[in-house]
Amino acid sequence: MNQDSCSARTEPTTERGRRSRLKLLRAAEQVFGQHGYEGASVADICRQADAALGSFYVYFPDKKSAFCELVDSLGKRLRHALADATKGETDRFAMERAGLAAFFAFLAEHQKLYRIVRQAEFVDEAVFRRYYERLGEGYAQGMAEAMKEGAVRRTDPVIAAHCLMGMADFLGMRWMLWDNCDASAIPTLVDTAIDIVSHGLLPRAGDPDATPRPKAKKAAKPARAPRKP
Amino acid sequence: MNQDSCSARTEPTTERGRRSRLKLLRAAEQVFGQHGYEGASVADICRQADAALGSFYVYFPDKKSAFCELVDSLGKRLRHALADATKGETDRFAMERAGLAAFFAFLAEHQKLYRIVRQAEFVDEAVFRRYYERLGEGYAQGMAEAMKEGAVRRTDPVIAAHCLMGMADFLGMRWMLWDNCDASAIPTLVDTAIDIVSHGLLPRAGDPDATPRPKAKKAAKPARAPRKP
Repeated sequence: MNQDSCSARTEPTTERGRRSRLKLLRAAEQVFGQHGYEGASVADICRQADAALGSFYVYFPDKKSAFCELVDSLGKRLRHALADATKGETDRFAMERAGLAAFFAFLAEHQKLYRIVRQAEFVDEAVFRRYYERLGEGYAQGMAEAMKEGAVRRTDPVIAAHCLMGMADFLGMRWMLWDNCDASAIPTLVDTAIDIVSHGLLPRAGDPDATPRPKAKKAAKPARAPRKP
Repeated sequence: MNQDSCSARTEPTTERGRRSRLKLLRAAEQVFGQHGYEGASVADICRQADAALGSFYVYFPDKKSAFCELVDSLGKRLRHALADATKGETDRFAMERAGLAAFFAFLAEHQKLYRIVRQAEFVDEAVFRRYYERLGEGYAQGMAEAMKEGAVRRTDPVIAAHCLMGMADFLGMRWMLWDNCDASAIPTLVDTAIDIVSHGLLPRAGDPDATPRPKAKKAAKPARAPRKP
């Protein structure tokens, strides 16, 4: 396997070129998602894109480079979708809620995202790590800023970011991909997850079922118990 | 690919047979972890196990069945390790802490766990799902019981279990596999994660940096801010 093919990318200079390249990437997403990296061929991608073989090689030196570009591009598009969804939000937890909902919407649109990213570990580990590292860096930075501003309780921002990313990842896998969750059920799923992240799982004084805790003097607002979607 | 090979297992009846089979599974863990399912061969596994080819086929009909058995066996061993680590704990959050520490210890011992489980999605999706579903079922059941007893705040136990599993998964990937975290740093990582899960990320009244919240009357104990390991 050519270790360098992932960095050998040809950026188109015309609008038409960009469109052709995007069409090939979209086809690659379907083909790699369905057949896996090993099972997919450049010919399959061209067939899916309704493009000539020669056209593929204008933009990508080989199958590997198209795959790596696809993973990078999915990561970039996800980060943009999350940034767009949370732009303008000033409340940190409203931002988390909007981000999680946007992630689920992205998954609904890119059902093969997990399959593609997971394969990357075996095709080019650097591409696989980069996908999560870039997501994690931005998230941890946002967390650190929110902690400085007092909008999030002070703790380790990198650990907090990874807790939140892992949560989103597993909820997305279970409800969006496996259970094919109905769109109407998503708000409850998002609210429940954000409630857990915001308030934690420790019973609070005043909760109907809380074990009495000696230091709690004032009764807090009882926790909502959202239904399972 | 033979769709049935995952269910065609031969259980050894003698102690010697069980040992031979386990030796082959351990070798399979190394070989699949290193070369990936596609890149690994039965001959590689036998070489790693220092076993004859014929011996492999006594226990497994083919490469696929050995792979599926490996994933099931890793899942089972992980669930046992978690159960052992939390046995006897009565405090739910001490149990969560012990479980997370045990998961990290399991990862330290099975560095290829993620790589192997992720491949399963492409080899036999049922085996892949089963790995997470069995973990999730037990976890959600434990959460539901803890909620009934008032040891965990009432919320959706299945969502809560997936939040915690995702958190453990991402922390394990980042700190145990990528950063190859020093054993001495693990307790702080575990404490920070469990603190987030217990108390949530919303600032509490009395936190040094908390934004004043109108409804909070009494100052709570300030949150600990553990260092990044």
